[in-house]
Amino acid sequence: MLEQLKGVVCRANAELPKYGLVTFTWGNVSGFDRESGLMVIKPSGVPYEELKPEQMVVVNLDGDVVEGGMRPSSDTPTHLVLYRSFPNIGGIVHTHSPWATIWSQAGQGIPDLGTTQADYFYGTIPCTRAMTDEEIRGAYEAETGEVIVETFEGLNPDRVPGVLVNSHAPFAWGKDAMDALHNAVVLEEVAKMAYHTRQLNSGIPSMNRVLLDKHYLRKHGSNAYYGQPGDSKH
Amino acid sequence: MLEQLKGVVCRANAELPKYGLVTFTWGNVSGFDRESGLMVIKPSGVPYEELKPEQMVVVNLDGDVVEGGMRPSSDTPTHLVLYRSFPNIGGIVHTHSPWATIWSQAGQGIPDLGTTQADYFYGTIPCTRAMTDEEIRGAYEAETGEVIVETFEGLNPDRVPGVLVNSHAPFAWGKDAMDALHNAVVLEEVAKMAYHTRQLNSGIPSMNRVLLDKHYLRKHGSNAYYGQPGDSKH
Amino acid sequence: MLEQLKGVVCRANAELPKYGLVTFTWGNVSGFDRESGLMVIKPSGVPYEELKPEQMVVVNLDGDVVEGGMRPSSDTPTHLVLYRSFPNIGGIVHTHSPWATIWSQAGQGIPDLGTTQADYFYGTIPCTRAMTDEEIRGAYEAETGEVIVETFEGLNPDRVPGVLVNSHAPFAWGKDAMDALHNAVVLEEVAKMAYHTRQLNSGIPSMNRVLLDKHYLRKHGSNAYYGQPGDSKH
Amino acid sequence: MLEQLKGVVCRANAELPKYGLVTFTWGNVSGFDRESGLMVIKPSGVPYEELKPEQMVVVNLDGDVVEGGMRPSSDTPTHLVLYRSFPNIGGIVHTHSPWATIWSQAGQGIPDLGTTQADYFYGTIPCTRAMTDEEIRGAYEAETGEVIVETFEGLNPDRVPGVLVNSHAPFAWGKDAMDALHNAVVLEEVAKMAYHTRQLNSGIPSMNRVLLDKHYLRKHGSNAYYGQPGDSKH
Repeated sequence: MLEQLKGVVCRANAELPKYGLVTFTWGNVSGFDRESGLMVIKPSGVPYEELKPEQMVVVNLDGDVVEGGMRPSSDTPTHLVLYRSFPNIGGIVHTHSPWATIWSQAGQGIPDLGTTQADYFYGTIPCTRAMTDEEIRGAYEAETGEVIVETFEGLNPDRVPGVLVNSHAPFAWGKDAMDALHNAVVLEEVAKMAYHTRQLNSGIPSMNRVLLDKHYLRKHGSNAYYGQPGDSKH
Repeated sequence: MLEQLKGVVCRANAELPKYGLVTFTWGNVSGFDRESGLMVIKPSGVPYEELKPEQMVVVNLDGDVVEGGMRPSSDTPTHLVLYRSFPNIGGIVHTHSPWATIWSQAGQGIPDLGTTQADYFYGTIPCTRAMTDEEIRGAYEAETGEVIVETFEGLNPDRVPGVLVNSHAPFAWGKDAMDALHNAVVLEEVAKMAYHTRQLNSGIPSMNRVLLDKHYLRKHGSNAYYGQPGDSKH
Repeated sequence: MLEQLKGVVCRANAELPKYGLVTFTWGNVSGFDRESGLMVIKPSGVPYEELKPEQMVVVNLDGDVVEGGMRPSSDTPTHLVLYRSFPNIGGIVHTHSPWATIWSQAGQGIPDLGTTQADYFYGTIPCTRAMTDEEIRGAYEAETGEVIVETFEGLNPDRVPGVLVNSHAPFAWGKDAMDALHNAVVLEEVAKMAYHTRQLNSGIPSMNRVLLDKHYLRKHGSNAYYGQPGDSKH
Repeated sequence: MLEQLKGVVCRANAELPKYGLVTFTWGNVSGFDRESGLMVIKPSGVPYEELKPEQMVVVNLDGDVVEGGMRPSSDTPTHLVLYRSFPNIGGIVHTHSPWATIWSQAGQGIPDLGTTQADYFYGTIPCTRAMTDEEIRGAYEAETGEVIVETFEGLNPDRVPGVLVNSHAPFAWGKDAMDALHNAVVLEEVAKMAYHTRQLNSGIPSMNRVLLDKHYLRKHGSNAYYGQPGDSKH
C-alpha cells in the first residue's frame, strides 16, 4: 500500500539529521496521497538512522491507522488538520530546528528582510497566537493544527509554506515530502539570518514589496525563470 | 565486577564528543549500582577515544576506590553526593558544554520558554547560588554536590534532571548513564535556544504552565503517549 | 571551447559547499576570458555535487549563450556588468553565505575592525544603496550589477574585492575564479567576526589606517613579503 | 637538525584545522629548543594538509634562517621576541581563531568568568594596547612581540599562557608546541563562552578569586590532583 510514498517519506525523515534540523527524534515528516485520502507518517520515537519504509504508518483522515505495526508520530492529528485545510499540499515537516524554534519561543514571526526569504516565502513567516488552556487541555495536537489554520486566514499557504507555533516550534509544508523538507531547511536558514540581522540593525523594516515580488515570482509561477525548464521550482 | 555497568559508563563517556558536549577531557559520566552501593566513573584526564571499559574506576559511597588502577575523575565526590541525595538516579553527566556553561557563568537558571524544554524538564533548570569561600577552600567537590542538593530543596530531581553550578558548568542525571547523557544533550540544546530567545525578546516570560504540563506529561509518567509502548520514554 | 576555464569554474562551484557558503543551489561562480571576451558560468539550479565541466555555460558580453545546453545562472547579467566595468577581474562568486547576507540585510557595510580583513580588503566592504522600484522592475539582474558599479565610484575593486547587495547578499571577485572563491570565504569570515565585535563593543571604530596599510601591503603589491616568492599572494 | 622538534611542530601546525582554529593558512606554530637556541616554525603561506616535517624552517634568535629552503612565517620576529622574554615557554601558536579575534578586535581582554578559564588561565586573558604608528611602520612583527611583553609586566606568562593583540588576533604559548596548541584551543573556547556570558548578563564581574585559585591550582603546580600521577597537567 502506497509503497512509493512510504519510500519518499522514509527518505525525507532520514534526511532531517543531515540538514541539522533535529536532535534525537525531534521531528517527523509525512506525505499525503490525495487520491486515496491516506497519509504516510513516521512512527513515534524511532531514530532516523534505523527507519525503514515498511515502518511508515498509514493513517486515514480520521486518524485511524490503516496499515503499520507501530504508533504514528504523536503529532499526527496536527498533520491531518493541515492536509484537510490546505488543499494543495502533499508533504509536511515538523522539527524543533533551533533558529526557527527560537522565533517560536519569542512568539514572533520571521520578518522578510531579504531575497533569500523572498525566493521561497512570499512575506513574513507568521507565528501563531498562544494556544488557550482549553485548546491545550483538549485535543491538543489537533488544536495545534487549528491554530495554524487560523493563522493563515487571509494568507496563502502555497505561497508561505511554513509557520511557527507559539512557544513550540516550526511546521513547513510543500507539494510533497521532499519539497516540504526543502522548505523546512530554508525556514531554518532564514530564521538564523533574520535573528542576526535584527541584532545588528534592530529597526530594519520588512524588505521592499517590489523586491519581494521580483524574487518570489522569479522562482514561482508561470513566469519563473530560475533553474532549468521543466524543473520543479526551487 | 560490575562489568555491564562499566561497559555502559565507558560508552556514555565515549559518546560525549559525538554530541559536541566536550573539549579535550572536560567531562565525565558515572553510573550507580544501587544494589551494591557502588559507582563506576571515568578515570581522570584520559581522552575519550582511548577509554576502555576495564579502565573505569569503581568507587564506594565513601569515595574509596574499590577497583581500578587509575584515579577516578576529580569530580567524584560531587557525583557521590548526588547519588546519596537523589534516590532514583542511576547516572550522572558533568561537562563544560558551552551553552549550558554560559548560563552557569551568568549565574542564571535556564527559563522554560518552550515545549522542547518541557518535553524533558518540568520547568526552569536552576542555577546554584555561588559557593562560599569556606565551601571552596574545604571539601570543594563534595560541597559542589551539597550546593546542588540545596538548590533542589522543594524541587523534584526526577522531573528536573539537571542543574547549572554557578560560575562553573552543568550536571545532568537520569535513571542510568545513557539517560543522563540524553538529558545532558537536551540541556545543552535548550540552553542555546533560551539564550537566543531572550536576546530576541528580552521580556519573554516562562511558558504557560498548562502547556508545560501537557508536554512533560505527554512523555513522562503513566499517561505518556509519546514513542512506542514499552519504550523508555524519550 | 575554453576547456581549461570550464574545469576551473566547475571546480570553484563544486567547492562552495565545502566552505559552508551555500545551502542548496544558492550560489554561482563564473570565470572570464578577457582575450575572447567570453564568460563561463554555472548552469542555473543544478546541484554542486552533480556539476560537470561540460555543463558550464559559455556566454558572451551581450549575454548570448555561445555554447552549452543549459540555461546559465539567473544572475548572469550581474556577472557581465562587473566584468565589463572592473577591467582586472577574472572570476566572480555570488552566494547567500549567512554572515555576509546578514550585513546585506541590515543594509550596512562591513567595517574594517582588524587585520584579518586588512589582509584582503583595503578598508570597509561596502553595501550598495537599496535598488529603486524601477531598477527592480526593469532589467533587474543587470541593474544589480550597475548598483554595485555605482558603489565603487571612488573605490578600487582590485583592492576591495567584494560587495554586499542591499537586502540581498554578497558578491566577491578576484583575478580568477579560485581567487574569487578565496575572497568569498574571507568575506564570510570577516562578516562573522565584525558582527560579534560590534555586539561586544558597539562603539568600536574602524582600525588604525596605518595598521590597515601595513597588513594589506604585506600581502599585496610589489613589496609583499607574505608567503613564498612566486606565490599568488594570499 | 632538530628532527624530533620539526616533527612535533609540523604535527601541531597540521592539527590547527582539526580544532577549527584556522581558515586557509591563517596561523602558525613554532617550537623552541632552549639548548641550541633555535626555533622551528612553519613556512609562510603553505597549506596545513601539505606540510611535511622537512619543510619546517629553523631560525636562530637573531632571525637568521639556519636551515630550510622556504621563507619562515612572516610572524617569525614576534615568536622570537616571546621566546627571548618568556624563559619557560617552548611553543607558540598564533591564529586568527574567530572568538579570540573578536575580543582582539573589540580591544578587550577576556574576563575570567568561570572555572573553564580558571582551569588554564590564572585570571583575565589580557589584550595589548593599540600599537603606535611608529611601531607599525617600524619592525612591525618584532614590535608586536614587544607590545605583548609590555602587556605582561606584572603578569606571569606561565600562568596566563595567551594574549590578544589589539585589532589583530591571539597568541598562545606553552611548555612545548603541543601544549601551546592545547592552550590556543582553550583560549578560543573561553573566548566564545565569555562573549555570550556578557551578552546574557552584561554586568557579571570576574569570578571569585578563591574559586579561581581552587581551579587553577587543582590542575597546576605541586599540589595538582587532576589527571593521573605523572601526566603533564591537562
